[in-house]
Parts: sequence; structure tokens; C-alpha cells
Amino acid sequence: MYNAELLTIGTEILQGEILNTNARFLSEKLAEIGVGVKWHTTIGDNPERIRQAFQTALQRADIVVTTGGLGPTADDITKECVCQVLGLELVEDALQMRRIEDFFRTRGIPMGETNRKQALVPQGSTVLYNPNGTAPGCWIVCGEKRAALLPGPPREMCAMFMEQLKPLLQPFSSGVILSHYVRTFGLGESRMAELAESYLDLQNPTVAPYANDGESYLRVTALAASAREAEDLCKPVIAKLRELLGEYVYAIDQTLEETLFRLLKKHGLTVGIAESCTGGGIAAKLTEFAGASAVFGLGVVAYSNDAKQTLLGVRPKTLADHGAVSPHCAAEMAQGIRKLAGSDIGLSVTGIAGPTGDGTNKPVGLIYLSVADGVDTQTMRCETGRGDRQYNRTIAVKQALHLLLQVVLRREEKEESKQ
Amino acid sequence: MYNAELLTIGTEILQGEILNTNARFLSEKLAEIGVGVKWHTTIGDNPERIRQAFQTALQRADIVVTTGGLGPTADDITKECVCQVLGLELVEDALQMRRIEDFFRTRGIPMGETNRKQALVPQGSTVLYNPNGTAPGCWIVCGEKRAALLPGPPREMCAMFMEQLKPLLQPFSSGVILSHYVRTFGLGESRMAELAESYLDLQNPTVAPYANDGESYLRVTALAASAREAEDLCKPVIAKLRELLGEYVYAIDQTLEETLFRLLKKHGLTVGIAESCTGGGIAAKLTEFAGASAVFGLGVVAYSNDAKQTLLGVRPKTLADHGAVSPHCAAEMAQGIRKLAGSDIGLSVTGIAGPTGDGTNKPVGLIYLSVADGVDTQTMRCETGRGDRQYNRTIAVKQALHLLLQVVLRREEKEESKQ
Repeated sequence: MYNAELLTIGTEILQGEILNTNARFLSEKLAEIGVGVKWHTTIGDNPERIRQAFQTALQRADIVVTTGGLGPTADDITKECVCQVLGLELVEDALQMRRIEDFFRTRGIPMGETNRKQALVPQGSTVLYNPNGTAPGCWIVCGEKRAALLPGPPREMCAMFMEQLKPLLQPFSSGVILSHYVRTFGLGESRMAELAESYLDLQNPTVAPYANDGESYLRVTALAASAREAEDLCKPVIAKLRELLGEYVYAIDQTLEETLFRLLKKHGLTVGIAESCTGGGIAAKLTEFAGASAVFGLGVVAYSNDAKQTLLGVRPKTLADHGAVSPHCAAEMAQGIRKLAGSDIGLSVTGIAGPTGDGTNKPVGLIYLSVADGVDTQTMRCETGRGDRQYNRTIAVKQALHLLLQVVLRREEKEESKQ
Repeated sequence: MYNAELLTIGTEILQGEILNTNARFLSEKLAEIGVGVKWHTTIGDNPERIRQAFQTALQRADIVVTTGGLGPTADDITKECVCQVLGLELVEDALQMRRIEDFFRTRGIPMGETNRKQALVPQGSTVLYNPNGTAPGCWIVCGEKRAALLPGPPREMCAMFMEQLKPLLQPFSSGVILSHYVRTFGLGESRMAELAESYLDLQNPTVAPYANDGESYLRVTALAASAREAEDLCKPVIAKLRELLGEYVYAIDQTLEETLFRLLKKHGLTVGIAESCTGGGIAAKLTEFAGASAVFGLGVVAYSNDAKQTLLGVRPKTLADHGAVSPHCAAEMAQGIRKLAGSDIGLSVTGIAGPTGDGTNKPVGLIYLSVADGVDTQTMRCETGRGDRQYNRTIAVKQALHLLLQVVLRREEKEESKQ
């Protein structure tokens, strides 16, 4: 497999003013055609460091792709530096010069002398046409190695890569790389990795563990000559991982909310949502999808106890005896919203998001969730052990979506067993 | 000025799965204390390349900050590689071990054996406490140079940097770099830049235009020996920019929701929120802050027409004659939620988030917002002209917060004029 280094040139990135979205885009596209990006390097508009970084990259990588520094201003010096390293001349490209002159003529803008330097390209290089700007890119053959110089503005860079550079990279493609995600819930990353340990050393497909905000997942990535063959490599491994992780796996690829939305829709189930500490976050997640109205009609953010009583019918005695953050209150909220929304299922969350407590001895990060489906009401307790308000709200939303998902899955099983 | 290199360790970044937000955050923070980041380097979870990259970084930079590879799984090897380069042993830190054990106990999650390796730290290094996770970081003195090892998950990394590493970097600071943000709403970035043009060439403070999702702001950044002096440099420029941008400026530094929350609290005003297309996103924003219950008690996500009628008292005739996405419906929703919540103010949003229309000839991205305060009801129309559901929902939330902010500001003016 050929490998590549991405060289990002631009002081604004080193100063943290903008994210390096170019490196992400190129990494993704190169992975898709089976070129392995092994290094990202970012330097500023400094000739010495640019030459140094380009030299290093050319030594260790088969393909070097630079972005930035092709503009008209004095600090755009990528071409100059690359030519110095490779011992090449910069020569004017007549076609590019005409393009630049036309660009300014058609816009009636006076063309600055500095723009002429944009028409200069390394001698013997293949000029890459810029559909969205004046700066041409170029493709340079350096013995066994290859170097591509692309402009910095993402709109120009992405278009030039897709239309001009990608075809030139085909000979270096080692096939198709394809990934699937085995998504789990309620399992720590390390525990998941232990259960799947025997698969983490596979070569093709590879299996790698990841985690974020209470969710853990395994990425299964295969390299093959065709997408079909890559799929065939992934399938058996995914099946085995499903077996190993059992109940913890809630979906392949699809996120928690996608999975839930799809299932609710499939079974024609509607849900009403009563939220306290999540403040509307659950309803917001479920309505991210077009056609959400098929599964969701009404949500209530009952932040005050008053709202919990008058709208959701939580009994004053419940609040007096157990407080708003209690399994009893959660259950009554779920039953209440189900009635109010006239939905098949009622989902509720009440908790202490923090950073400070609710004046009782209940810990910050304590969350109660409940689902009522008319037959029975299931309530769950969860404690994050953290004071981070945003984190606690995020976890509460995910726990709620997951609890609802479990209930819907059990209904599905029952129905199937009936048949 | 001391310089630094950021070493990002993680295959997921080289494969383009995630953006390198850590490098951006650290670059910005280091710039603020006058440490110049000269290199970003990203490599995968590969021992040889990690050792190689760390060695190179230590040679050319005064301070090396690594992120990632401190997790519990087998491919987390940053500490091991760094120790090999520096010839240090990894030793168990008793305190960290206890933290990790407690972390799993409180959550009732089984602790994996591999988690124990997270308690290992390079001998003689200063352990950096992780407020948001189990992986400790560390600070290593290497002769004249310094190396800091931080975890990869942004929430853990950012908190550890701010609380633990930043103080250790003070001796390397070449001064204080301080930024303020002049936040505007309803003004395009280019128009804002035009209005502020004469200030964009300033050297100290510098003034730079930014924009995201319908908001535009100017960053004013000054470098001085002390925060006090930096403030003195910013102040007159900010005052001038306020003058130039006038009404469009809604706050210095504070976000829309922060500004609104602060003002509502200051005036003891409560708000009820009725949402349709935003699906709870407005309530979620307003409840991001501790003590939100002082200004917010009830929100209703009235997604279905039925909910709009039964709960908010929108008249069937209104829906029949004008549809749910109309100024009439928005107004009745605002008035309805105000009554239902018993709040001083009612805020409502109804619109077509897309990607497809609502079956009428109304355009996708059409949004109506309304605020009712008992005296009068103000309704506003906005059209994004886009089919992007997520974008339309984001804009709708911001427009709603901004409309409410304007109403509250006018009430403030009236009261002050009375006095």
C-alpha cells in the first residue's frame, strides 16, 4: 500500500484561528482509494520550515500533498520552496496566465502584478486546473515519489482534488477501503475491547475500539479490490463481534437516535416526551430527522414542579415524599405525558444536571428515566458521578434514547414470538 | 518567544474520521499566553512513528504537547513511546490507581484489567489530574525542554490544559495575549468587515472578522506585558467598533443565550417556550445554564397541529386558513404558552425545517417567530433560502433567542426612561 503525507501550510492554523478541515477531507478521500495517510504536518508561511518539512515528507512518504501558499500575496511561497528543494525552475504557464487575466477582465477588477506569479508552475509539472479560483495546482513526478500542490481555500482545494488529482492517484490505489461500526451502549471502552480482544489484531479487516460520551463502538475496516469484496470481509467479523458483545450492541453503523427513529417508524409507534434536566434535548434529537412527525407529536419540558403537576399530573404527594428527582416522579411523568400526548409510549427524564445539587442530599449527576407504554411502566436509575452539567445532560439524553430503544425492541420480540 | 510543537496521536484523525479540534484549541490557548506554535504533527498509533515524531519535536521545539494515546486499550502507547525516547521507566501512581478504581465503582461498571495501565506514569514526571476521565496526563522536564502528555478526548484534554497545564506553562509566557469578541446579529460577515474596514489593519490590537451559522463577530486581540495593559489596548477599539456597528452589536464576548439568560435573570423575567420545527432546541439552549429554573419553568414542543390546538389554544380556524407555518399561528402559540406557563413572556417558533416542504407552496426554510408579553405580541418572519434541515433549525433557534433579547432590551429601555 502506498502511503502519503499531508503538508498543510498556513500560519492561521498554527494560531488556532481555523480548523484544519483540508487535512480531514484529504485523509478521508485518500483512505477511500486505499492510499494510507501516515503523517499530517502543519507549518506556517516560513520558507525554511516549509523546505525542511517538504524534504522530510518526500523522504518518508510515497506521495506528498501540500495545501495552501499558492495565493498571490508575498507570504504565498509554497511553489518557490518546493522548487528549491527539487532543484526545479518556475516557468510561466501561458494558459494559466490567460485564465488569470480573463478572471479579472470579466469581473472588471484591475489585475495586480502579484497575480502574475500565480501563473508560474514548476517546470515539467502537470498543471491542475482550479475550477473555483485563480491559483492553479500542480502534480510533480520526483523519481519514485509524487508531490501534489493544492490551494488552501477548501472550496478550491476540494474541487481540484476531486476533478484533477484523484484521477492521477488511481495508479497508486490499493483498492477500496470500507468501514462499519459496531455500536454498543452501557459498556466501557476497555471492557468492550477486552471482550473483542481476539479480534483487535486482525489485519484485514482491522477492528479498532472507540468511545465518546458514554458510548463505545468498534470500527471494522476492510481493504479489498472492490466494495463487494470489502463487504464480504467485514460481514463475518461483524457477526462474530455481535455474538461476543451480545445485548450491548444496539446497531451496526446507525446512531442511537437513527436506530430508534427507524424502529418507531417501522412499528408505527408514537412517543410523547416529558423532560426536566435535559431541557428539550431528547425531543430535539428525535426531531432531527425528516418525517419526525410520524413518531413524535408532543413534548413537554416540565422544568418547574408546578409544570410537572399541572400538565403531567405528577401528584403533589409524590413530590413532597420523594422529590422531583425520584423514580416515582419519573414514572408519573412518563404516564402523564403518554396521556397528554395521546401517544403509544411516554418517555420521561428527571435528574440533577449540576454543577450544584438540588438542596437535598441527592448527588449531582443522579438521573431517573422512565418509559410507560400503557401495559407497564419501566423506570431506571443512572448516576454519572460527575458535576459537569453539559456532560450530565448529554448522558441523560443518550440513556433515555437507549431505554426507549430497549422497550421498543422487546415489543418487537414479543410480536415476532406471537407469529 | 518560546516555541512549541503539537503532536496529535490517533489513527482516526489520519483516516479523516474526526477533525483535529485539539490542535486548534491548544494553538489558540498557547498563543494567548505568548507561546508560538510552529508545528502540528499528527501520526497514528504506531510505536516507531510516535517515537520518531516525538524525538524530532523535542529537537526543534522548546515545548512538546502530545494529545491522545493515554487510554486503556492496547493501541494507547504514547506514554510507553515517550519513555523509550527519554529513557524513563513507567511507574504506578497509587493516587491515580485509586481514582480509576473509584471511577468504576461509583458507576457500577466492571473495571477492565487494562485500566490499571492508565495509572502508570513516567518516573519523575508531574502527574496532571484528569477532572473528566480516568487517564492522567503528565508534565516531563527534559533538560531545557518540556513535554506534556494530554489525553485525546477533547473534554478531558481541554479541562486538563486549563486547570493543570496552563499554570505550569506560565514561566514560558512572553506576555499576555487577550481577546474580546464584538458579537453582532443580522449582519453578514462581509458587510460587517466593510463597516469595520479601517480597523482590520491594526497591529495591536488586531481586529479579525469571523462568522458562523448566521452570526458574525469581530475578534479584538491585544498583546501586552500584563492583562491590564492588554485590556487598555482593546477598550478604545471595542468602543469604536460598537459605534460603527451600532444596533447590530448584541454583546461583547457573551453568546446570544448567555446575554439573554443574564438579562432575564437581572429583570426577574420568566419565559415560556412553544416550539415546533426547533423540536426543543430553544428550551435546551436556555437551560444550559445553572439556575435556569429562575427564568424558565415550562416549554412545549408542539410538533403536531393537535398539540398546538389542545395545549396552546391555537384556533382550528387559524390552522385551516393560514396553516401551522404562519404569523397567525406563531402569535397564538406565543400567547398560548404564556398563559399555560404563567410566565411573563411567551416565545414561539413554527417553520419548515426541510429538507422537503410541508405540502403547501411555502418555501423550505420559512420560519415565523413570535413573542407575547401580555401587552403586545410581536411576530417576525425569516427565510433561510436553504433546504438544510440542521442549518434551518439552528438559525430558527438563534433568531428566536435574538427576537426575545430585543424585546427584553426594549423593556429595559422603557423602565430606565421612566426613572
